[in-house]
Amino acid sequence: MVYAHCNFLINRYDVDMFIVIGPGHGAPAALANLYFEGSLQKYYPSYQSNLEGITKLIHNFSWPEGFPSHVNSQFPGSIHEGGELGYALAVSFGAVMDHPDLIVTCIVGHGEAETGPTATAWHSAKFIDPNESGAVLPILHLNGYKISSKTIYGSMSDQELFDLFTGYGYQVRFIENMDDIDSDMAVSMDWAYQQIRTIQKAARTGKPIFQPRWPLLIMKTPKGFSGIKTLNGQQIEGTWRAHQIPVQDPIHNESEFSAVKQWLESYKIHELIDPKTGVIHADLLKTVPHDRRRMGDNPKSMPEFVPLELPPITDYACARACFDKGGVAESITQTLGKYLSGVIKRNPHRFRIFSPDELTSNKIDAVLKVTNRNFQWDKETANKGGQVLEMLSEHTCEGWMQGYCLTGRFAMFPSYETFLGIVTTMMIQYSKFIKLASETKWRSDTPSINYIETSTLWRQEHNGYSHQDPMFINNLINMKSKLIHIYLPPDVNSSLCAVEACLNRKRGVNLIISTKKEMPLWFNMEHTRKHFAAGASVWKQYSTFDGLNPDVVIVGCGNETHVEAVAAVGLLKRDVPNLRVRFINVVDLMVLDIEAESGLTDDTFENLFTSDKPVIFNFHGYPSAVRSLLFGRNHIKRFKVLGYIEEGTTTTPFKMLTANKVSRFHVAIEALREGAKSNPQVALDAHLAIAQYEGHLKEHDRYIVEYGKDPEYLADIFPKSA
Amino acid sequence: MVYAHCNFLINRYDVDMFIVIGPGHGAPAALANLYFEGSLQKYYPSYQSNLEGITKLIHNFSWPEGFPSHVNSQFPGSIHEGGELGYALAVSFGAVMDHPDLIVTCIVGHGEAETGPTATAWHSAKFIDPNESGAVLPILHLNGYKISSKTIYGSMSDQELFDLFTGYGYQVRFIENMDDIDSDMAVSMDWAYQQIRTIQKAARTGKPIFQPRWPLLIMKTPKGFSGIKTLNGQQIEGTWRAHQIPVQDPIHNESEFSAVKQWLESYKIHELIDPKTGVIHADLLKTVPHDRRRMGDNPKSMPEFVPLELPPITDYACARACFDKGGVAESITQTLGKYLSGVIKRNPHRFRIFSPDELTSNKIDAVLKVTNRNFQWDKETANKGGQVLEMLSEHTCEGWMQGYCLTGRFAMFPSYETFLGIVTTMMIQYSKFIKLASETKWRSDTPSINYIETSTLWRQEHNGYSHQDPMFINNLINMKSKLIHIYLPPDVNSSLCAVEACLNRKRGVNLIISTKKEMPLWFNMEHTRKHFAAGASVWKQYSTFDGLNPDVVIVGCGNETHVEAVAAVGLLKRDVPNLRVRFINVVDLMVLDIEAESGLTDDTFENLFTSDKPVIFNFHGYPSAVRSLLFGRNHIKRFKVLGYIEEGTTTTPFKMLTANKVSRFHVAIEALREGAKSNPQVALDAHLAIAQYEGHLKEHDRYIVEYGKDPEYLADIFPKSA
Repeated sequence: MVYAHCNFLINRYDVDMFIVIGPGHGAPAALANLYFEGSLQKYYPSYQSNLEGITKLIHNFSWPEGFPSHVNSQFPGSIHEGGELGYALAVSFGAVMDHPDLIVTCIVGHGEAETGPTATAWHSAKFIDPNESGAVLPILHLNGYKISSKTIYGSMSDQELFDLFTGYGYQVRFIENMDDIDSDMAVSMDWAYQQIRTIQKAARTGKPIFQPRWPLLIMKTPKGFSGIKTLNGQQIEGTWRAHQIPVQDPIHNESEFSAVKQWLESYKIHELIDPKTGVIHADLLKTVPHDRRRMGDNPKSMPEFVPLELPPITDYACARACFDKGGVAESITQTLGKYLSGVIKRNPHRFRIFSPDELTSNKIDAVLKVTNRNFQWDKETANKGGQVLEMLSEHTCEGWMQGYCLTGRFAMFPSYETFLGIVTTMMIQYSKFIKLASETKWRSDTPSINYIETSTLWRQEHNGYSHQDPMFINNLINMKSKLIHIYLPPDVNSSLCAVEACLNRKRGVNLIISTKKEMPLWFNMEHTRKHFAAGASVWKQYSTFDGLNPDVVIVGCGNETHVEAVAAVGLLKRDVPNLRVRFINVVDLMVLDIEAESGLTDDTFENLFTSDKPVIFNFHGYPSAVRSLLFGRNHIKRFKVLGYIEEGTTTTPFKMLTANKVSRFHVAIEALREGAKSNPQVALDAHLAIAQYEGHLKEHDRYIVEYGKDPEYLADIFPKSA
Repeated sequence: MVYAHCNFLINRYDVDMFIVIGPGHGAPAALANLYFEGSLQKYYPSYQSNLEGITKLIHNFSWPEGFPSHVNSQFPGSIHEGGELGYALAVSFGAVMDHPDLIVTCIVGHGEAETGPTATAWHSAKFIDPNESGAVLPILHLNGYKISSKTIYGSMSDQELFDLFTGYGYQVRFIENMDDIDSDMAVSMDWAYQQIRTIQKAARTGKPIFQPRWPLLIMKTPKGFSGIKTLNGQQIEGTWRAHQIPVQDPIHNESEFSAVKQWLESYKIHELIDPKTGVIHADLLKTVPHDRRRMGDNPKSMPEFVPLELPPITDYACARACFDKGGVAESITQTLGKYLSGVIKRNPHRFRIFSPDELTSNKIDAVLKVTNRNFQWDKETANKGGQVLEMLSEHTCEGWMQGYCLTGRFAMFPSYETFLGIVTTMMIQYSKFIKLASETKWRSDTPSINYIETSTLWRQEHNGYSHQDPMFINNLINMKSKLIHIYLPPDVNSSLCAVEACLNRKRGVNLIISTKKEMPLWFNMEHTRKHFAAGASVWKQYSTFDGLNPDVVIVGCGNETHVEAVAAVGLLKRDVPNLRVRFINVVDLMVLDIEAESGLTDDTFENLFTSDKPVIFNFHGYPSAVRSLLFGRNHIKRFKVLGYIEEGTTTTPFKMLTANKVSRFHVAIEALREGAKSNPQVALDAHLAIAQYEGHLKEHDRYIVEYGKDPEYLADIFPKSA
């Protein structure tokens, strides 16, 4: 019914519109309409508009290899995975941003409305600038019941519903006249459309309304509307009994069969199609919008891939000197902020930043020099447009990004590392959507979604244990490996490489783990590019004996953990000069996984990590991530993976490293214990050095409570003048 | 200020109350009050009420090894990890359930209010039966700004706020008279208290109010209230500049120093304590509630552990016969439902079930025979009490469970497997809370929180790919291993063992992966108990040659994957009779992890899995989970881990298994490929069998589209009469 009324509106006003269907198991309605309007046939020619086609359509629904009962990327015109509830609304808002002519109709079920992500996504309207963006027309569908009891929204009075959504900032209108629901709906949809155009016209003629109140429709129909009314003396329509399977055994029970028959016949299918040929009557098809105005064929929901125009990263690269300039170091994210400013300038209305934190907090606020925060409820920022959206809801930001990117535009999601985990299942649902999209040949590529973790677990000296959680990595690596990329660039130049790679990549889920803190620079851009392209390489300058014929391999992966690994080599060079140490940095984590797009072959892997020497792998996140990626490589017991082991509190950066056993001393001790085995020459030196480092660690435990005496975190990095 | 007003209320009416502090970095206010009232000193004697103590208190705040800036389990009286925002409200509601006299004051910051979990947790009041439970007094604190811009709630008008929360079902009152904020607050708190008691009295005298409107306070104060007013001609108080560090360099800048001095002196500390001794003036202490009425020492927030009285699981155990009774098999969760009914009956008001799904959907609705759904907005269920809470918000259910369990009661959280992932970060924050609690010696044990995944990824033939996600396992295994337990019981008897173990365990995070589908029974309860206690054992009856001197080890772990592993042995016994196969079931996943509480020693591990034979591990979830747990064991390259590899769609259960390569044929082929290496006798048979199984798999691909022809999923399990 909603679909048909959208068509009516599209035809009447030539509206650029498509639909996002929130309710679970909502696919039958979508399929029927896609078939009716012919867009299903366009992409799936076997579902022809004849008896064979319609039979196949009915037979294959929720059938092995057929269409599922939830809308997904196999449905023409869909930009939303209809499985996990809660995200339809935020995704819809993301889709209309920077699409000034687009209206997305979003149906929110009252089950979905109970979820937290939906409950806060209603605020999204406050982030829509009516001049630069289109509009969402939300339709909250209430039918009272779930499987066996009332829903929350189904039990609220009209007054409560009206108050709630008025409070959210909407103009509310009910569709509830069951005597003539079609007229009620038509009038309401028209009203909503006019309200949208009024708000937009005001903004686009230089007389913007402050805090515009967008329309919202609440559709109240009985559960199982138009289905079986009563059965065996029990009411079905309008009760929870209408859920899923209202009739248990129509095959064997005659009265049940007759109820089903009567129900299905009530749709008068013989008046809609020719019963002999199955062809839809031509006059009915006049109600279908023309060609690409059909909601199953709207180009914005299935866009061609148009790349971003990226500024050269070399313009933003740092030389060694820039870290010493007047003693003011620059944080990695500060430089990224400048680069992203360049991206925004070159690609007006095609790139947005969605963040649950404030960009100021992530030190990428340089972008605010070239664009604005887009928050319409604040006089300071209203009606100015802008590519930066900040809302303290990871869920909403993620939904916005998904909607924005699936409609052909690009985005970046900066977040505290720990709180990115909040959207894990949304990322997974999205990965499922694009995995199937990539197997669906009529779907074009879409831009990747890109996360950047800025405030990482190792530097939470004021936030403590609750802000330490690298779990997002672990969840990403379970997705299809060709879709995902995880970069841990150790400095600003490699971070620039990573951002460039992510913004260029099609249809991916990319994660960059960086830091807003000041970090040393390791190489110039020319060398960095080579290293980044390889994903992992031997750093001769930071090895001993140029890394040849090593006794032990030390790997740095991350920011702080990389620095510690380098520093460990420095200690070893000084204290055990005959130990042969190869140093490797892993910047692209998936090189470890033999099955990944960037996965190293076993030969390359063993050229790099050797085939039999001990490897001390100092990792940014949970060791389990690296462990599972290494599984299947040869002789992996020689790998000692150090990483975050859930030890943390409010403490100094260095104590965080020692508590989790990833400090330079821990790395050096492990390297000596393992490396000395194959090089008896170093046994004596190793013994002394281990004693020395263990002493340092104990000493730390004593004086760590005083900040000032803590060894300067970045000091003594070896070699000083690489 | 809120704390002091709570104390006023507590004293006036002898209220049983404690506080949950939502705003991030809210710890200073808590610390100051805990110190003032003396409960800090009770648990941390070194923070004495003298000059030394107060100096230490100030010095150690947000200092290495000192108290963090967020409230956590180190704070007396706290039941909430104050890191990740969004959960304070739901946790508060969980705490008051079945505590009829308790009032929890919950401060929600306007940052937290932007999160989805908070946005839907406001509905929690609809699930509080005023007869059987206490009340939450929510105080929404608005001060307008975040780090550098307005918040959503800070930009809403009073009318919008009033409408919104009226819509949520509350009576709203503003606290905003800045001319006399204390009086305004006192009167408002008193009003709220009277409203609560009125609602409760009505319900407790047999005249319950339908849809009672609980009070909610909105406190509007300027950001940085009572701090620096202006500095260098710029307004600080009441603007975003008051965030975090309002003054940049008071050490070197004289006017900044003087502003800080003036600010701190305005609190007139010398009137509160004796400047010489640091002792708090006695007359001030008269405002402190007595003894355990102090909010930092409320026994309900730090309860003694009182175990549940559990019915004997043998009363619910199945004998083989029960699966054939009249041809009606019983699903595992149906039996668990009966057992949980027994738990509820024996432990009135001490055990609740929180679920985002309806129990009917999870087939544990037997409990509804002994208790009720507790949803006050529905006439059918209002004012009846009840231990079952169903709300389609995983976040809210999780928050309720945490609050309920941390205040000494027990709970179970049944969920679809896939959607449990939604609360991953909440589980992690909770794990962090109890990890620190276990290191805090004055904290007693609390009951575990318990999840049961009922509708698992392998049986989503009608829901499809979006409903397949076992990621919760992967995230659990990164938590401190002594806290967590993951059970994959393959039948009803072992599921009963698992539930019993979870309900008995203190201070843990437990996950049971079961199924609502009918499954075969493997052993009687006596044998099952032994197997469960071991965590993993050789199943001689399902091995060949009694599992002695095996050529290959096959491991089943899960439900469907276990059945397929058993069936694979059956195939091998029939087709390659000379192959020696040992069959193992792993019911406690953590036995694999040498560091876990239930982790096997290397000796036991190798006794079980052999030290060098190939092992085919057929796992329920992502292979990465098992891979990372096995890492560090000897010769792990011989382990072939099969599991869910993100291949799925709407299809038959068996096709799901073949698509992910965990079917009986895949297991058998892998076993033959690896096992035949060490037993050349079987080479010829193995060759033929592999060809046969590969043929079956191809055949499946052909005829799988017709349900009826799919091989009966549970058929041909070997041996038939174990």
